[in-house]
Amino acid sequence: MELKIKYLDIQETQDIVFLNVKDAIKERIDPGEKIIVKKSDSSYSSSAVLTKNLIPEGFIGIPLEKSKHYNHLENEVVEVLPDVNMELIHISKKKIDGKILTNEEVRKFVGGIISGNIDSVVISSFLTTTQILGTSTKEVEYLTRAMAETGTMIRFDKGPIMDVHSIGGVPGNKTALLTIPIVASAGLYIPKTSSRAITSPAGTADVVEVISPIDFPPEKLKEIVKTTGGCLAWSGVLNLTPADEKIVEVERKLHIDPEPIILASVLSKKYAMGAEFLLIDMPMGEGTKVNTWENARKLASNFTELGSALGMHVEVAVTYGGQPIGNAVGPALEAREALMALERKQSGSLTEKAIGLAAILLELGKKADVGKGKAMARDILESGKALEKFREIIAAQGGQSDIKPEEIPLGKFKETILSEDSGYITKVDNATIVKVAKILGAPFDKGAGLLLNYKVGDRVEKDDIIVELYAESKERLLSAKRFLDYNRIFQTEGMILKRFPGFKVI
Amino acid sequence: MELKIKYLDIQETQDIVFLNVKDAIKERIDPGEKIIVKKSDSSYSSSAVLTKNLIPEGFIGIPLEKSKHYNHLENEVVEVLPDVNMELIHISKKKIDGKILTNEEVRKFVGGIISGNIDSVVISSFLTTTQILGTSTKEVEYLTRAMAETGTMIRFDKGPIMDVHSIGGVPGNKTALLTIPIVASAGLYIPKTSSRAITSPAGTADVVEVISPIDFPPEKLKEIVKTTGGCLAWSGVLNLTPADEKIVEVERKLHIDPEPIILASVLSKKYAMGAEFLLIDMPMGEGTKVNTWENARKLASNFTELGSALGMHVEVAVTYGGQPIGNAVGPALEAREALMALERKQSGSLTEKAIGLAAILLELGKKADVGKGKAMARDILESGKALEKFREIIAAQGGQSDIKPEEIPLGKFKETILSEDSGYITKVDNATIVKVAKILGAPFDKGAGLLLNYKVGDRVEKDDIIVELYAESKERLLSAKRFLDYNRIFQTEGMILKRFPGFKVI
Repeated sequence: MELKIKYLDIQETQDIVFLNVKDAIKERIDPGEKIIVKKSDSSYSSSAVLTKNLIPEGFIGIPLEKSKHYNHLENEVVEVLPDVNMELIHISKKKIDGKILTNEEVRKFVGGIISGNIDSVVISSFLTTTQILGTSTKEVEYLTRAMAETGTMIRFDKGPIMDVHSIGGVPGNKTALLTIPIVASAGLYIPKTSSRAITSPAGTADVVEVISPIDFPPEKLKEIVKTTGGCLAWSGVLNLTPADEKIVEVERKLHIDPEPIILASVLSKKYAMGAEFLLIDMPMGEGTKVNTWENARKLASNFTELGSALGMHVEVAVTYGGQPIGNAVGPALEAREALMALERKQSGSLTEKAIGLAAILLELGKKADVGKGKAMARDILESGKALEKFREIIAAQGGQSDIKPEEIPLGKFKETILSEDSGYITKVDNATIVKVAKILGAPFDKGAGLLLNYKVGDRVEKDDIIVELYAESKERLLSAKRFLDYNRIFQTEGMILKRFPGFKVI
Repeated sequence: MELKIKYLDIQETQDIVFLNVKDAIKERIDPGEKIIVKKSDSSYSSSAVLTKNLIPEGFIGIPLEKSKHYNHLENEVVEVLPDVNMELIHISKKKIDGKILTNEEVRKFVGGIISGNIDSVVISSFLTTTQILGTSTKEVEYLTRAMAETGTMIRFDKGPIMDVHSIGGVPGNKTALLTIPIVASAGLYIPKTSSRAITSPAGTADVVEVISPIDFPPEKLKEIVKTTGGCLAWSGVLNLTPADEKIVEVERKLHIDPEPIILASVLSKKYAMGAEFLLIDMPMGEGTKVNTWENARKLASNFTELGSALGMHVEVAVTYGGQPIGNAVGPALEAREALMALERKQSGSLTEKAIGLAAILLELGKKADVGKGKAMARDILESGKALEKFREIIAAQGGQSDIKPEEIPLGKFKETILSEDSGYITKVDNATIVKVAKILGAPFDKGAGLLLNYKVGDRVEKDDIIVELYAESKERLLSAKRFLDYNRIFQTEGMILKRFPGFKVI
């Protein structure tokens, strides 16, 4: 309802505005009810006092002080709406009471998160309830759609649209830098967007950023994909799912990550990008998000089911997450390793994983017959077509498309760690690697990170160089080295695993 | 650990400070771990970088920019502590996982609420979890003690200490203004503290404030009680349970009120005041907090059990809450009514309820034999001793001890509501009364409120004055009157209960 402003020369101790009773009845506003007064540049909530004579129909009476505060002019038109806050609170309470939310309720709630009508305290309550009680399949679908549809939606005029996403938890997972160009080389659209590191030492976006810009407005991104078939972009600036950002902010404070929110968060971004075939890379192993087959199977079927409700074919590949992918951890080191793999100067787990994932995408996209995807992916990589496509994508993104791996600058300060024992490596500790990489400065210092010279099953001799550390500051380097005096990345048979120093050492 | 500041001329992009590795090991601080740097006037959290040579033992290296920001002087001593935030988060997560918290964990959590180390988002998560999963008896006990012991604790050198508390939900409940002087007249200590209205049109503190100051520091309050045996004070300024205030703030945003928190909130304040015998007034009826005998019994036994764990004798009186106590609702109207009852110029539900509650307290305090409390309470009231004691308490509080009921100023603007029907009143609607009183301006406008001329069972004739409205502003008065055109306080047999006006009316 639009009303004209009338100044009221009254002392105001409470937050009130005055409406004519006829206008109030039209909008079903009860006396004392909270309403929103909206101008183009401001909006606030006040209690409605209803009056028959003091304010004529079509006007809203605003106390003088408040009028001044909000720069209201007399007879200026403002919009008056019932305050939906209470409605949003009722939605949160309904969830606490264990009831199932309707599509409309979920949409209103997500809208409230974005508009700021929902306080972070209420988001926290919603997340906690979701963590404890879970959600129905339908609720997750509503949530996913609402999160996508309240942000940027990108649609391409050619299909099918492929995509790949890793749920994370394994260090050094720079696989997308190989997978995307392989798939795009085959003539499929694969507009890959990814996030920066949240708790890891390097997200795909952090790695690509070493050699290329990663943030593009939607039109520019569409152009890159139209030209090259793929992209390696950051999702941040696209504003794909603005609600998700506010949710993640609260999740970080609570240190919880409810599964329905993981599902909605991942698939809403892919739905917003118009993905039709999505491959989820689900690393399994100690320290990753799934550590048993039962958990993996359950999460996979939840992803597939939700995808299908959204009209998206979602396939899940459970991958080995017991040790890093490849040997490098940290943005610049990982960019260098990926480029070497594209140049066929290096092979191993990185190449194998990228080929495995690309193969599934080629088969889903009907570019290869079932069972033939791997051979096709390997051929694209080994023929140099993937490297060529990678350079093409980086060029389209405005990056250093001709850079050689050895030209990528690493941390100025370097240290080596020697093996204290001889033996076969039985375990590589992901958590220690992540901690060391972060002490070294990753992901913020691009050149910081570590290079593992050995992996599980390798034979190592005493005094072999097992790890190389890189940092942008000497202090960080020494700090990491000191940490490794008391914590081990590698375990060999029979060795001491960790020392707990007493109070008087050194 | 106390360390001296050393400036470090380094660029800082992340939030880091530098410690000597020996100091770090002494305090078991790992590299990268969050620590708190504390000065008398500031404190902040940073990640620890450990160094062997750059910073000597006994020093902390702080980047120059940060030093400037916090006004650090070189060689100034600061305190360095591990950041307990993560520990507090773990406590909240443990609760989400359905595990029982230890006494130490609850105390740390409450400490974190008070120190501000716990974000309101985490308090929200804790409250939501409590609402959904409940708490063990032991946890509520820990919580109650922790809430009391982190605030002001008041102890008297004479006993027994009596107290009475209403859990609310019934309008016009000014009973304490009679009960307290009756009990104090009998020679018992009854240091009554109460809150202002939260959602009601008048809390006991709001009513007493009409004729007397209500906020006293602990020493002054003790003196009032020592002189008169009682008091009618506001709990706010005493700072009895500072954690409760922060909890209530979040509860209001969430519009939830988990039972374990109600228990802890009520009993922690009474425990802080040293109460040995506490009577809980539990109004039962539509719109109150308990509406069935089963709920009443359960809540009562939880109060009693928790009281006993705290060494407090807690008795619960379920009282009639189906309509207001007495006839007045709103601070000044209620103060006037209570004073009239003390002057024996009025009798009825207010007098009867006050005598009933006082009787139990007299028996618990061994001033009357079991079964004789009522006669004694009535005698104290009718002899004028209660009035005398009331005036004595108000005088000790520095209030208008000689004021007559008719001298208490009511709202300048007055309206009467006439009955539209004839018949017997079958229901008085508490919720409508509360809404009307708040539209009229209660509890903020002291003179605002309403006077009911009839109660359930009374015979009313068409055009009888059934309600008198009082307000400090004409607009509020008209607004309330308009509201009563469409909503009824009284129901008589056969009448229309509410009208929903269409879009085109008046």
